[in-house]
Amino acid sequence: VTRVTIFGGGRVGSLIARDLSSDDDLEVRVLDRDEAAVRRFRSAGIQAEVADLGSGDDLARACDASDLVVGAVPGFLGRSVLEVAIETGTPVADISFSPDDPLDLGERAREKGVPILVDFGVAPGLSNLLAGRAAAELDPAESIDILVGGLPFRRVWPYEYVSVFSPTDVIEEYTRPSRVRIAGIERVRPALSGVEFVDFPIIGTLEAFETDGLRTLLRTLDVPTLREKTLRYPGHAERMRMLRETGFFSTEAMEIGGVRIRPRDLTERLLFQRWEPAADEEEFTVLRVVADGVRDGRHVRVAWDLFDRTDFGTGTTSMARTTGFPCAIAARMLASRRWTEPGVHPPEVLGRSEEHTRYVLDELARRGVEVSRTEEMLE
Amino acid sequence: VTRVTIFGGGRVGSLIARDLSSDDDLEVRVLDRDEAAVRRFRSAGIQAEVADLGSGDDLARACDASDLVVGAVPGFLGRSVLEVAIETGTPVADISFSPDDPLDLGERAREKGVPILVDFGVAPGLSNLLAGRAAAELDPAESIDILVGGLPFRRVWPYEYVSVFSPTDVIEEYTRPSRVRIAGIERVRPALSGVEFVDFPIIGTLEAFETDGLRTLLRTLDVPTLREKTLRYPGHAERMRMLRETGFFSTEAMEIGGVRIRPRDLTERLLFQRWEPAADEEEFTVLRVVADGVRDGRHVRVAWDLFDRTDFGTGTTSMARTTGFPCAIAARMLASRRWTEPGVHPPEVLGRSEEHTRYVLDELARRGVEVSRTEEMLE
Repeated sequence: VTRVTIFGGGRVGSLIARDLSSDDDLEVRVLDRDEAAVRRFRSAGIQAEVADLGSGDDLARACDASDLVVGAVPGFLGRSVLEVAIETGTPVADISFSPDDPLDLGERAREKGVPILVDFGVAPGLSNLLAGRAAAELDPAESIDILVGGLPFRRVWPYEYVSVFSPTDVIEEYTRPSRVRIAGIERVRPALSGVEFVDFPIIGTLEAFETDGLRTLLRTLDVPTLREKTLRYPGHAERMRMLRETGFFSTEAMEIGGVRIRPRDLTERLLFQRWEPAADEEEFTVLRVVADGVRDGRHVRVAWDLFDRTDFGTGTTSMARTTGFPCAIAARMLASRRWTEPGVHPPEVLGRSEEHTRYVLDELARRGVEVSRTEEMLE
Repeated sequence: VTRVTIFGGGRVGSLIARDLSSDDDLEVRVLDRDEAAVRRFRSAGIQAEVADLGSGDDLARACDASDLVVGAVPGFLGRSVLEVAIETGTPVADISFSPDDPLDLGERAREKGVPILVDFGVAPGLSNLLAGRAAAELDPAESIDILVGGLPFRRVWPYEYVSVFSPTDVIEEYTRPSRVRIAGIERVRPALSGVEFVDFPIIGTLEAFETDGLRTLLRTLDVPTLREKTLRYPGHAERMRMLRETGFFSTEAMEIGGVRIRPRDLTERLLFQRWEPAADEEEFTVLRVVADGVRDGRHVRVAWDLFDRTDFGTGTTSMARTTGFPCAIAARMLASRRWTEPGVHPPEVLGRSEEHTRYVLDELARRGVEVSRTEEMLE
């Protein structure tokens, strides 16, 4: 058996744990700092222990006792999980989205002979896999556009949005300038730029705007135009711009009535109350990857579409499913030695291979997450 | 000569001081707590002194030395100016808009034989005068609707608004429930309710929403339907509702990062930066009073319209002109003994008299503020 340790037992980590536990060849254990979470895993028949994932010693001990590690910790802890795993020679499937560029650890991982699969969620994640596939299928690929969003079906004024992520991360998306590549030139633009409306089946019209989500793709893909946009219901971006331009997202402390406060701290607290999903909230995830390019001398457009919604049968949100399943599948690829190449690999590297792409999409479909592919001639 | 003391030398008080100083029969003196303001008056040839307008002794001394007082202080000081003036037997023309009901002081003013004219601005102010006129002209008056707003010509996203008032007062307008009377029944509705679009000449479409501006009219006028709405550019009310419903206008202290803060304190600071008029800001004031009722057995609609804009020739904003001139005219009515009746009188009381209404409107017109009147048959 392969001993798998999952770092982090939150929504996504839980889903990964349940997924991997169904495999008799895997011996799954979850580490989390929260005792209540640990008790929940145990009562569900999954090994779990309380651990301080911020401690390098705890991480190293856990890695030493594992054949494979899954990183599902908050972003700020993600980097140290990767570093410790590399030093202890433990393969990792990761979904933590550390703010640093994970590719910087590639050389060290190759030296140590450790295969690391990073950013295996939905976007980054599936979006990268499909972008990598597009770049491999087309010769050349001229542009790749990624659209992604997770939204509630029930639209409550004024934000028409709920978040299972912390508002901190969401507001960060709305403030960090977005890096895109247009016709070969890298551009940095304000977040929430480039608002456009896009129609989707089932849902209707959504609004798409630039956010800084390309991450590794800007380094790994030699495609002249690369863009990522986040999807919300129409009007959301303008409201967020209004709050941002008024100063509510500012992280510079102001003195108000004798005390110092960062406006964003207050704003996060207020928005959190508004963005909290209801217990029975039904939500969906949309991902669309559109690639224009040349195949057999003809201009073509290849598009992949994912639409996933809350599965009340299994009690899983589409957010957890679309984020957690790709990581669980990546973990299985490492456990089964389907992927053995040392180094730090984001999903677009697997996308180069039709076989690997097929495997990931088939495994997703087995779990109820369907990705459709369409192709049209542009001339 | 009549000795007039103006309490408060702000934008409105300054305009009143200049207006009254042009009359040789009046000896004008301004009291303000700000030394710089006092120096500005003196260099303009107007008597001025530094005084603590929060001190009852200072107020009483000033009243004793005056034949007439003009109240142009912030609302929270307004009440004590009236009280001290009544006790010292000094007539007052007031524009301070104290949050309390000034009519409560009526009995004491009658006992002391002092005539007090209160709420002599634009709205409250001219709006009351015209509502009082409508109630007198129609038999019966069935409904009176007041629309009022001051706005910049230059519309800057997202608020399309500037304020010479403190944001505190403006946010108070957006939070205090509005009291209206509909078909004889008093109703309390959330501020920002009842949004509708109204077209105006020169300006185009504005948005009107209920705010709590009727004040004395609900007590003084026996008209079944009485409403006041504030005018802004379309979209403003929804943005304000968004901030209010998210909690940004809350006055309940929250603990954020170890310090306690009232969200509204931060919000006021941020909005103040956004709402500050430019040095050369061109603004306008719109007031429309529409009254439906019966005259000579026919259903008629009488409407008064005021449109005033920044006068760069005299360097006066329409806000100061439309607010300050009515108060200056009221002061002249007291000085000339055109109005002598003891008691506390809001403008609608003067509106009962065609002669007094005519006097106020003629004096306004001489100062460049024109009010037009239209009448149409409704059947």
